[in-house]
Amino acid sequence: MQKRKIGALIVGVNGATANTTIVGTILHNKGLIPDDSFKRGMITEDDCLKEHDLIDQTQIVFGGWDMIDKNAYEAAIDNRVLDRVVINSVKEELKKIRPMKALHTPHDVDETIASDYSKNGTSLQRRVDHLREEIASFKENNGLDGVVVIYLASPLKAQGTGVYNTLEEFRKAIRDNDTGLTSGMLYAYAAIEENCPFVDFTPNVTLETGALLELADINNVPLAGRDGNTGQTLMKTVLGQMLKIRNLKLDGWYSTNILGNNDGKVLARSEHAEIKMRDKLGVLEPLLGYGDFDHTVNIEYFAPRGDNKEAWDSIDFLGWLDQSISVKINWLGRDSILAAPLILDLIRLTEYAQRKGEKGIQSQLAMYFKNPLETEARGFYDQYKLFVDYYKPTAKVTCLPQNVEEVKHVDNPCAVVSG
Amino acid sequence: MQKRKIGALIVGVNGATANTTIVGTILHNKGLIPDDSFKRGMITEDDCLKEHDLIDQTQIVFGGWDMIDKNAYEAAIDNRVLDRVVINSVKEELKKIRPMKALHTPHDVDETIASDYSKNGTSLQRRVDHLREEIASFKENNGLDGVVVIYLASPLKAQGTGVYNTLEEFRKAIRDNDTGLTSGMLYAYAAIEENCPFVDFTPNVTLETGALLELADINNVPLAGRDGNTGQTLMKTVLGQMLKIRNLKLDGWYSTNILGNNDGKVLARSEHAEIKMRDKLGVLEPLLGYGDFDHTVNIEYFAPRGDNKEAWDSIDFLGWLDQSISVKINWLGRDSILAAPLILDLIRLTEYAQRKGEKGIQSQLAMYFKNPLETEARGFYDQYKLFVDYYKPTAKVTCLPQNVEEVKHVDNPCAVVSG
Amino acid sequence: MQKRKIGALIVGVNGATANTTIVGTILHNKGLIPDDSFKRGMITEDDCLKEHDLIDQTQIVFGGWDMIDKNAYEAAIDNRVLDRVVINSVKEELKKIRPMKALHTPHDVDETIASDYSKNGTSLQRRVDHLREEIASFKENNGLDGVVVIYLASPLKAQGTGVYNTLEEFRKAIRDNDTGLTSGMLYAYAAIEENCPFVDFTPNVTLETGALLELADINNVPLAGRDGNTGQTLMKTVLGQMLKIRNLKLDGWYSTNILGNNDGKVLARSEHAEIKMRDKLGVLEPLLGYGDFDHTVNIEYFAPRGDNKEAWDSIDFLGWLDQSISVKINWLGRDSILAAPLILDLIRLTEYAQRKGEKGIQSQLAMYFKNPLETEARGFYDQYKLFVDYYKPTAKVTCLPQNVEEVKHVDNPCAVVSG
Amino acid sequence: MQKRKIGALIVGVNGATANTTIVGTILHNKGLIPDDSFKRGMITEDDCLKEHDLIDQTQIVFGGWDMIDKNAYEAAIDNRVLDRVVINSVKEELKKIRPMKALHTPHDVDETIASDYSKNGTSLQRRVDHLREEIASFKENNGLDGVVVIYLASPLKAQGTGVYNTLEEFRKAIRDNDTGLTSGMLYAYAAIEENCPFVDFTPNVTLETGALLELADINNVPLAGRDGNTGQTLMKTVLGQMLKIRNLKLDGWYSTNILGNNDGKVLARSEHAEIKMRDKLGVLEPLLGYGDFDHTVNIEYFAPRGDNKEAWDSIDFLGWLDQSISVKINWLGRDSILAAPLILDLIRLTEYAQRKGEKGIQSQLAMYFKNPLETEARGFYDQYKLFVDYYKPTAKVTCLPQNVEEVKHVDNPCAVVSG
Repeated sequence: MQKRKIGALIVGVNGATANTTIVGTILHNKGLIPDDSFKRGMITEDDCLKEHDLIDQTQIVFGGWDMIDKNAYEAAIDNRVLDRVVINSVKEELKKIRPMKALHTPHDVDETIASDYSKNGTSLQRRVDHLREEIASFKENNGLDGVVVIYLASPLKAQGTGVYNTLEEFRKAIRDNDTGLTSGMLYAYAAIEENCPFVDFTPNVTLETGALLELADINNVPLAGRDGNTGQTLMKTVLGQMLKIRNLKLDGWYSTNILGNNDGKVLARSEHAEIKMRDKLGVLEPLLGYGDFDHTVNIEYFAPRGDNKEAWDSIDFLGWLDQSISVKINWLGRDSILAAPLILDLIRLTEYAQRKGEKGIQSQLAMYFKNPLETEARGFYDQYKLFVDYYKPTAKVTCLPQNVEEVKHVDNPCAVVSG
Repeated sequence: MQKRKIGALIVGVNGATANTTIVGTILHNKGLIPDDSFKRGMITEDDCLKEHDLIDQTQIVFGGWDMIDKNAYEAAIDNRVLDRVVINSVKEELKKIRPMKALHTPHDVDETIASDYSKNGTSLQRRVDHLREEIASFKENNGLDGVVVIYLASPLKAQGTGVYNTLEEFRKAIRDNDTGLTSGMLYAYAAIEENCPFVDFTPNVTLETGALLELADINNVPLAGRDGNTGQTLMKTVLGQMLKIRNLKLDGWYSTNILGNNDGKVLARSEHAEIKMRDKLGVLEPLLGYGDFDHTVNIEYFAPRGDNKEAWDSIDFLGWLDQSISVKINWLGRDSILAAPLILDLIRLTEYAQRKGEKGIQSQLAMYFKNPLETEARGFYDQYKLFVDYYKPTAKVTCLPQNVEEVKHVDNPCAVVSG
Repeated sequence: MQKRKIGALIVGVNGATANTTIVGTILHNKGLIPDDSFKRGMITEDDCLKEHDLIDQTQIVFGGWDMIDKNAYEAAIDNRVLDRVVINSVKEELKKIRPMKALHTPHDVDETIASDYSKNGTSLQRRVDHLREEIASFKENNGLDGVVVIYLASPLKAQGTGVYNTLEEFRKAIRDNDTGLTSGMLYAYAAIEENCPFVDFTPNVTLETGALLELADINNVPLAGRDGNTGQTLMKTVLGQMLKIRNLKLDGWYSTNILGNNDGKVLARSEHAEIKMRDKLGVLEPLLGYGDFDHTVNIEYFAPRGDNKEAWDSIDFLGWLDQSISVKINWLGRDSILAAPLILDLIRLTEYAQRKGEKGIQSQLAMYFKNPLETEARGFYDQYKLFVDYYKPTAKVTCLPQNVEEVKHVDNPCAVVSG
Repeated sequence: MQKRKIGALIVGVNGATANTTIVGTILHNKGLIPDDSFKRGMITEDDCLKEHDLIDQTQIVFGGWDMIDKNAYEAAIDNRVLDRVVINSVKEELKKIRPMKALHTPHDVDETIASDYSKNGTSLQRRVDHLREEIASFKENNGLDGVVVIYLASPLKAQGTGVYNTLEEFRKAIRDNDTGLTSGMLYAYAAIEENCPFVDFTPNVTLETGALLELADINNVPLAGRDGNTGQTLMKTVLGQMLKIRNLKLDGWYSTNILGNNDGKVLARSEHAEIKMRDKLGVLEPLLGYGDFDHTVNIEYFAPRGDNKEAWDSIDFLGWLDQSISVKINWLGRDSILAAPLILDLIRLTEYAQRKGEKGIQSQLAMYFKNPLETEARGFYDQYKLFVDYYKPTAKVTCLPQNVEEVKHVDNPCAVVSG
């Protein structure tokens, strides 16, 4: 039997994360990257997932939209995430991947997130119809069994975002060229209409839209979001949960980020940072169960960093007798390197969800997101438990110690845990 | 009905952790410390434990042994953990607490861990008998319902430590004044013989001794150990498990500690540091499931720090395509402030275990220790799961999300988790 | 002969720096602080200055203005710089020091820097006249030989600050209640009119005013400013000069500050931060001689810190073959502890300058300021050289190695240098 | 007139610093590196030095000794300091540079610093004679006007190092195969006998040897040393002098280094670290003028770092009223990148010194060394002053502000300073 072939259409396909995902996958498919290196950072490579027939990277065909008209090779050179020599080894393959023109709505047009290459000048209805045709053609032209749409665009302005609780309202808004509609909503709408799972890796308000949930329910389409959980916030969900368990009282958490890529440039604009901040700032209070602490997050554009992000956190908490303890964390790494394998995971897992008949927000995927929708789990390990409980093998392989007895006697522990 | 009264006999009662535990408890019992401040850092104060009838701090009577002949007030002033003004407010109560003479064996006599005040010159059998009498008298004189012994002494030399697999061998070794017997083993032996739960908060080789496990089994005595998990290693078990779950490959972990208290002085001696290092270094490999990374731990005596410990970690790991990411952590806090509430937890939980008929190593308490005995759980959250599974309430209060469904609809979530 | 008695009138006398200066001086004068501790951080205590007959701390009488009507004891308790027990030991002396009502002008009235206690409602001419009377009365009532005025108020808004090149313009502006006049200018004007040396320790635009320089020239009054050089910027002038000398190319310097005192609150308001930033950002380019690097400075109000300031810097520079090197600096300390001894230095040195017939900006004092006026010396060591060259003893004590020969054979080196 | 041609013979020519110096110089000479990048980190490129006719990089011919028999290309690939693509662009030139066999004495033979390729088995007299012949041949074969010898070998054991106060003693020791003679001494002896300036960039005891100073005096040979001042210690001399000037009292300085190159491997052996530590630890006390502080330096071999050195310092000092302030510094960079331009400087400056008739230790070069010989200047800026005073131009270009007046009116300031 022939293997399924799945399309991955990425909004913002020339951005550092999407582009790195593509370059790395091609490198691996050509045998230029060892398996081990490729699997680093992918949670779906855990033994616990082996029982599920997830697709693998050789089954994925990449494409997408961007506001910059460059092929994937040119984008890789500009993104400077991987070494030029490495990029050159898959130059021909990369050159073949060109973005479709990105769509923008009146809401989000802005010089930092739109360009001459963006589609303008027609009605929203026309743009949506065009998007749907693009998805359908991509599927047909590539002989695909299915397509997943991953939303990886820049943060949009929060102000002026519309609320559309019903499908009827939403469709009317499209017809009326309503200025509250964001490009993200239109991509999601088109994807769901085309029966494509939709993943929102951005902080933008998209999948909270009631109309889109209604449509996903009707069309049986799985969704996942919001806002990929990579560096600094990952640490926050991990250490925050430790503080909670150890009953240590957070007094203040100061976070600053310096980064020099396009994301940094967009986020240095306060109207765009707002939406990002909401997710970054929103993570601690529900996790800890109290809000009487200082919490500050800065994002600064700092050119010398390029795609290398540097984060610094200063955390004050109170221990016994209210004595203070302080921890400083300095994080140095490329966001794309953490994010890319998660994108592959999400393609695999939402495609699998669709095959298994799941629809709507997949809350078992909470651990992938800063602000996971439709779950109250805010700590990293609570989220991981959701994941393991969902995917845990039916038979002998245990993924988490089930009880003391098992922990003591288990012979062949699953990779995730030592027990 | 009268409340139970429980003795807590601490080996190393004048050390910073033990002494701080005592000062803080008295402060609270006199109403000088608000409940909230007192409960910080105590895991037993979580709502999930409410169903169990643990003793509270007002039911505990403190005592212990030390090689320094000072009362608890003098020790508190010297330890400089709490403010002098605060200490003075319970001066009279503290002055009444004087240590019994610490016992040492030929194995561990050393100028840093023994003194003129230590008991020397008699046979080991006499010393053990004397210890048992001291425990029995303390119980009788204070009208106690039970006694817990907590071992908080300095790290001993690893070299020359004896192995005693059976009770018979062990008793013969006592009679023969065997030089492989450590003071810790004799304290444990005496405690178990007196039916007292024994907690080992040190890195010393004590409860691994087969003879002691045999005796605990015969006498129905619960045990817990080894090596309290407070600052740097706590972070290691927390972040190490995150790396494992996220499938990020550790490349190197460099840890250095600078501290200026007596613990620092002892640990600056390589023959004592060895045993501590074993636990500090031993935590990562079983947690991660591989050992091909550099792992270095330094401990430096640095007088300006006093009891304030400063730790710095430089962690290198590999993400996707083997790209490296680096995290630096600087930890500034007092060990005693993290350790003291754990001591109270362990008194409560081992006393409870004895009442419930438990005996031997209590592996559900793994999360309290760097090197928890009789469990393979090495990650912080795996250990926490053991704890929650053991103590989880029988009825409605949930302590961890049981499955996706519950997470979505839970009404009255337990404090530990957000779900 | 009786010792001179000198008044020190401080604008912002209840702020952390001014108040700490007063508390520390009284502690020392009462013999509660050893000489060594008192002299830490004072540059005038260097042996090189011994030949000059500077006044000492016992000769200083403190007073000043503030917008908060508290005595120095109440202010000290609120500032939380020193331990309460220590403050209480000079409670009576501190209670006697009460501020005069602070003056504000229409330009700078703002809820964060003015209060009901501020003087409002009269013409600027009346306010200035009143200030002069206050200075004169303070001098007479305390039997003083002279008075130095130190300006330690909060940063004002930059916007709307007037430029007054001539004394005539300035006096007309006062008469016209010109809205470009800042309170700082009026304090400086009144001080100079009363023949008092004036020190500007703030980032406000004050002594650049041509009119004030003209008046100082006429009245023979020495001036010093601008903006005290304490923590983060001190490091910048020190390390910046090292980079310059070593010919290493700065690529980017990211600085963030978190502080929880009133200064932090004022500076979190961008219109006030602007003027502070100007000095903080202005230090590197003239020092390095080029401007093609990223330079970002953040100031964040973070309550858990109180007066303890924490700063973090991430510095990228290029070494040989443009290879990058990165240094991160985390600074933890109280600004007041660094600033207070500098205030004492500046009182001593400007009083001395007046006696020696100096007038106008004292550029030999450049090392005290972030933005020293009337000098191009921007590196810490260039500024120090100015200082040493000015004060260097006439005779045998050498303060800096004069040439190789001297370095090799010097017998009794001055404390400042090793040569 | 033809330009002078000068040989640079490096002991340890395949080590990271020497090899990088050679690769970078060839890259520049071939026009593959812009002038600006090449000059970064070179102090001799300052305008103040322009008046002196120093040789330039095109006039230098490199050669040297090593215990590893690789050509410069192979060494560059192994050292991993520069990118492989960059190294390949000068592959042919590098392949031509092969080391002569390194010499070792019985004193310093050790598996980490000797190899089969080292010269053994003959008398010391023969080895010295051979060294001299090698130098002479190198000069003749390359048609050189002079040769400078730079000692860049690994740290040797301190124990057993001989003291030879007179030339007579030294020559007798050679004849007697004395075990106190180190390889460094023999290299220095041979160089001086051949009239070559000798630079000691290592912590080894070499130029303190009285016999060698005597010989340099007789032969009119300039010398410079000891122990190149690059990363962590550079910061120490810079910040230490700031503390001194600001009269802040050092309480403790904890330094740790992690590095993964061969240097790291050698220094992880305590008998080799001893000599390095002496210089690292020796820098603060003479600079500060007191010794009552804790000072700890760790060096750890940590493979993931490679040639990238990471250093972390935790500095505690006391400000006013003995209040403590703490600074943490994290340094991330390649030692070779800081050291290589200094090697070029030292070649240029010692060659120049010889032409100008200087002999013996050149103490004006103190700023290049951790432990500069024959000077008491220990602060970075005192050392820089020595340098500037020595080389300062005779005419109009000023290199340091000479006095207040000049600072105010200077029109065309020299690059080094802002005045």
